[in-house]
Formats: sequence, C-alpha cells, structure tokens
Amino acid sequence: MKASPILTSAHKIAIAGLGLIGGSLARRLVDHGRYVIAWNHNERPYAAAEACGIHCVNSLSELIAGKPDILVLATPLVTIPEILKILAPIWHPSVTLSDVGSVKGMVRNQVEAAGLGGYYVGAHPMAGNECSGFEASSSELLNNALWAVTFDDTTQYSRFLTVSDMICQGADNRMIAVDDTTHDACAALISHMPHVVSTALSNQLVDSRNRNIALALSAGSWRDMTRVSLTDPQRTRAMVVEDAHNVESLLRQMATRLNEVADALHTDDQAALTSFFAKADPFRRYKADEKNKASNSQQTISSQTVSSLDLQDDSWREDLLSSARRGEQILAFTTTHQVSIQTRAIA
Amino acid sequence: MKASPILTSAHKIAIAGLGLIGGSLARRLVDHGRYVIAWNHNERPYAAAEACGIHCVNSLSELIAGKPDILVLATPLVTIPEILKILAPIWHPSVTLSDVGSVKGMVRNQVEAAGLGGYYVGAHPMAGNECSGFEASSSELLNNALWAVTFDDTTQYSRFLTVSDMICQGADNRMIAVDDTTHDACAALISHMPHVVSTALSNQLVDSRNRNIALALSAGSWRDMTRVSLTDPQRTRAMVVEDAHNVESLLRQMATRLNEVADALHTDDQAALTSFFAKADPFRRYKADEKNKASNSQQTISSQTVSSLDLQDDSWREDLLSSARRGEQILAFTTTHQVSIQTRAIA
Repeated sequence: MKASPILTSAHKIAIAGLGLIGGSLARRLVDHGRYVIAWNHNERPYAAAEACGIHCVNSLSELIAGKPDILVLATPLVTIPEILKILAPIWHPSVTLSDVGSVKGMVRNQVEAAGLGGYYVGAHPMAGNECSGFEASSSELLNNALWAVTFDDTTQYSRFLTVSDMICQGADNRMIAVDDTTHDACAALISHMPHVVSTALSNQLVDSRNRNIALALSAGSWRDMTRVSLTDPQRTRAMVVEDAHNVESLLRQMATRLNEVADALHTDDQAALTSFFAKADPFRRYKADEKNKASNSQQTISSQTVSSLDLQDDSWREDLLSSARRGEQILAFTTTHQVSIQTRAIA
Repeated sequence: MKASPILTSAHKIAIAGLGLIGGSLARRLVDHGRYVIAWNHNERPYAAAEACGIHCVNSLSELIAGKPDILVLATPLVTIPEILKILAPIWHPSVTLSDVGSVKGMVRNQVEAAGLGGYYVGAHPMAGNECSGFEASSSELLNNALWAVTFDDTTQYSRFLTVSDMICQGADNRMIAVDDTTHDACAALISHMPHVVSTALSNQLVDSRNRNIALALSAGSWRDMTRVSLTDPQRTRAMVVEDAHNVESLLRQMATRLNEVADALHTDDQAALTSFFAKADPFRRYKADEKNKASNSQQTISSQTVSSLDLQDDSWREDLLSSARRGEQILAFTTTHQVSIQTRAIA
C-alpha cells in the first residue's frame, strides 16, 4: 500500500459507558465535530449527555445498528466479558472495536474469547482523577492527554489508523503505539508495583510499636510515598492481580535492589552506595528538564522539535515500538504511512 | 523533688548557626520575649539578624561568656565535632547544651566524646523547606511545629525542663520526648529508608529498556513515589549512612514484605493478598481522621481533648516514652512534674 493523504476515518463513534472517561471522550469528540452515539447501563446521564450533543441510545444493539466506525468500551473492566457476550452475535464487520482499559493483555484475551479479535485495537488514555460518573466528566480532562494504542501480530493496519484518527484528530491528543505485553509491563513498572511498595511502607509503620512516634516525626517524604496506599485496597488488589505476572517479577527485582543497599550499608561499601544513588541521575536530569520546559511553558511547547517518521506495511509494529522506546510521541498522521512526532526521553 | 509551679528556665538562649532552622528559632524566641544571642560562621546575616532583635556576637567564646541558659547548635551536622572541640575547654557548667540535628545518637556520641555529655539534651524540630540561610528563615516556619526532645539514662531532669521550656513556652511549639535510639529508628522508618525505596524505584525505571514508554504512561502515583529520589543524592547518601544500622534492618524487612507479595501473586494466594492490603487499614483510618479534623480546622483544634500526665522523678523517661508511643504530644508543662497533652494516634 502506498502512502495516501489521511482522511477522517472515525467520523461516527459509539461509546459504551458514559462514566468519567467515556463521558469526557464523548464530550471532546463532539467538541471536535465528530458524531457520537452513546449507551449507558442506566439512563441517568442521558438528559445531560443529550444537552452536550451526544446521541444516546437504549441498548448495545442500537449502538451497533447505528454502524459506527468505532465502538469504544468505556465501562468498568469487570463488565467487559459480559458486554462482549452481548455484542458478539450482533457485531457488524465494518465496526472497529476499541476500549479505554488500563490493562491491555487481559482485555485482548477477553475480546478474542468472544470472537471479536479481528476487529480490535486497544487504547488507554492517560487521564483521570478521583471522581467518577458523567457529571464529573469534561472535555478538558483529556487536555494534552497521551494515549497508548495497542496491537498484536494480527492487528489490521486500517483499523489501527481508524483508532489513531479518533485520538489524534478526533480528540486532539497525542499517542504512542506498543504491543500489549510492553504496555502491561510498563503499567506494572510505573503504577501497579509502586502501589504495592507504598502499601508495604504503610504496613511497616503499622507493624512498629513506635508507629505513633514515627508518625509524629513524619513529613513530606512519608506523606508522598504512602499516598497511593490510601486508595481503596480492594481496587488496588484487583489491579495488581490483573497484572500479576509483571508485578511479581518487578517486586522481586525491587526486593533485590533493597537487599543490595542493605548489604552495602552492612559492609560500608561506599562504592556500591555511590553507584546506587547515582543510577537515578538520568531520571533526575529528565525531571529537571521537564520542569524547565514547564516554566518556559507556551513558548517551548510550540518550539519543541517536530520531526516525522515513516511507517512501512511490513514493519509498522516494530517501527512504532522502537519509536515509542526512543521517547517519541505521535502528534498526527500526516499521511496513512507517516506520522509527526515529538520526543520526551531520558537522556 | 515535689512538683513546683513552672518558671521560665530558658530566658537567655544562645544559638550557634543562623541558617534556616537556627534563624527561624532565633526570630521566634525573640517574638516570644526571650533574649537571644547568636553566632554565625560568617557575618553576612548579622545586620538583618540585629534588626530582628537578635544579639549577634563574633565568636563561640563570646556566646559562652554571655552565660546563656541554653546553647543550641544549629550548624550543619558535619560541623558539630569541630564546634564541640572549640566549646569544650570554655564550657560553663550552668549552660545546657542542645541542638536541632535530624539524627540524635550520632550527635550524642560526639557530645560525649567532647566531654559535654552531662550538659546535653538533644532536640529535633519537625520543620524545614527546600531553602537555606537566614534570609529564608522566619518565625512562621515553626508554626505548629512538633519537636522531638531526646534523653539517655544520664540526662538531668532540670536540663530537660530547661530545653522543654524553650520549646513549649519560648517557641510556643509542641514536643514529644524519647530516647535517642527510638528517635533514630523512627526517623529511619519514615524518612531515611523511604528515600532509598524511592531511589530504587527510579533505578528500576532507568534500568528498563522500556523506560521512555513507562515514563509516557506515568501519572500521579509514580510522580509522588519518586519525588524524594530527586533530592541531592550526596545528601541522601550521607543521611542514610549516618543511620546505617536502622536503615539496613528496615530495608531487609521491606524486601521480605515485597517478596511475600510476589510469592502470593505466584501461587494466587488470595488470603495472603487480602491480608497484605488490609494491614494498612489503621493508617488509612488515621489519615481519613486527620483529613476530617483539618476540614473542621479551627473549631476542632481547640475542642480536641486536652488531658494531663504526671511525671515521676524515678520514671520520667519511661513515662514520657510510653506517652509518646500512645501518640500523646506535650503542649505545656503545667508544673515541673505535670504536662498537658493531646493525642494523635493510630487506632
């Protein structure tokens, strides 16, 4: 296939679930001129949603009957198998299936089990807050959001383009594209495993006979490191169990790192301690650089270097994964086989 | 000794070091009517300090010659042995020695090595920010501050009362009193060990080939848990090494906790996972309770229950340590042998 000018390939978008993320996406797509139809498991937000220009329907079959370009599952993760069971027998092959779930391997397995694997391209927007429900949703929640779009070896490039169009043009957001395994390993590294570590810190306090003294002496470092341990433990447990394999491996690696520092303190191995504390320097430089950019704000965002990347039909998956590993984020598809990118990378 | 009405026993206070903490303490004591004399290793802040009512002198021997009730060391920890060497031969027995260092066992060892152990009562105010120097200091930095006052088996009760008077009446702050070992173990638990854990998390990212993808997906939990890893690694290393024994032990315990969760994930041991995530519940309830109190603010602070605790001449150390373990904080000495207290405890 030759590169072609990009056309709007996701004009009509169906959204199942008008919660915080589904509602925000629906509002934002409407704001950018897309036709949005939506369904929710109850009708409570329909009047408010209709007032925002979202066309609400009463059943999943009505969503499919509307022949959208994409149907986005934006219901809680636990409801997805049930919804897929309803959708499978009424699916129309022209519709691309996507979702906004925070784990991708598990959702793909469920989609494949329902026989819809051939229509699926996963997606995960980095956005959210402590609230929930359509009343908490807003187009602005997705301002400057980055999405991870996920593929496997069977993903059709045309469907990948359709989901990318919804994100880059429809929602005016950035994206990276990676395989499910990489996505879930990264989510474990920067969220699921740290949730366990934070809880272990809180447990260490609770188990101490000096817990009230320690708390009295505690300041910002303790507050920041235990904040995520305060979130609903049932939800955290579910998140960790859904990504068990990755979290297990990362926890063992973290335990090894902590024992190595303990050993270095025991033997007063100054070289090992220096090396341990210096290792994070590239991350420190990255954060200092981000802070500088933020303080220069507007000017720098527009003046950041934009370059382009060509995608080949036979290697687009590897091209995109390598690009994401280099810290490149996709701003837009300039043709069907070329993207404009900006880089945010650890040096 | 019988309980007697409390008198101001720390009227004249000498402060060595007019940095962020020393400067803030000096300003605050002046605000509360105490006579403050101060020395700094250079004269830069003297004009500003004099303008605040702080009487500046040119040498440590002038500080001692002024016969203060207390001399507070507020210079960086590394300078303390050198300053003690100067102070030891000119010390006057009526002066009580104190400090504001964040580790207490090490300072006491240095004080004893200098032959000043009999005059010493350690102190550590929970206050600070990212700045340094007299120009960054302010009386308000110590608003609502809690101090840890530390003792050992040889600490004289009258000197303990003098330092307590400086804190409770002189600085209008709260305090707890604990032995050095307990203080340093608690500081390791809520600060030194978590700094290592935070750095280990950042190292885990830096070591990953997917580091830029993981960073792109990262949000608030990652930001909060790695914030303290961004602080100057040399300073963090020094802090950890000064409290090596405690940090080593806590890191091994944390590693064991993380490996136990990894094992539970490996064997899908739901009971172990439930137990792990539930263990932090008392801390979650404490934080929720603190948040409620904060939102009721003014009203609740005054309406919190104040009770009293009697201190015995033969058991005041154990009385105060047990009180601190129960989460009681000392508001004031109502007599020489009775304190008023408020409780902030994990239920």
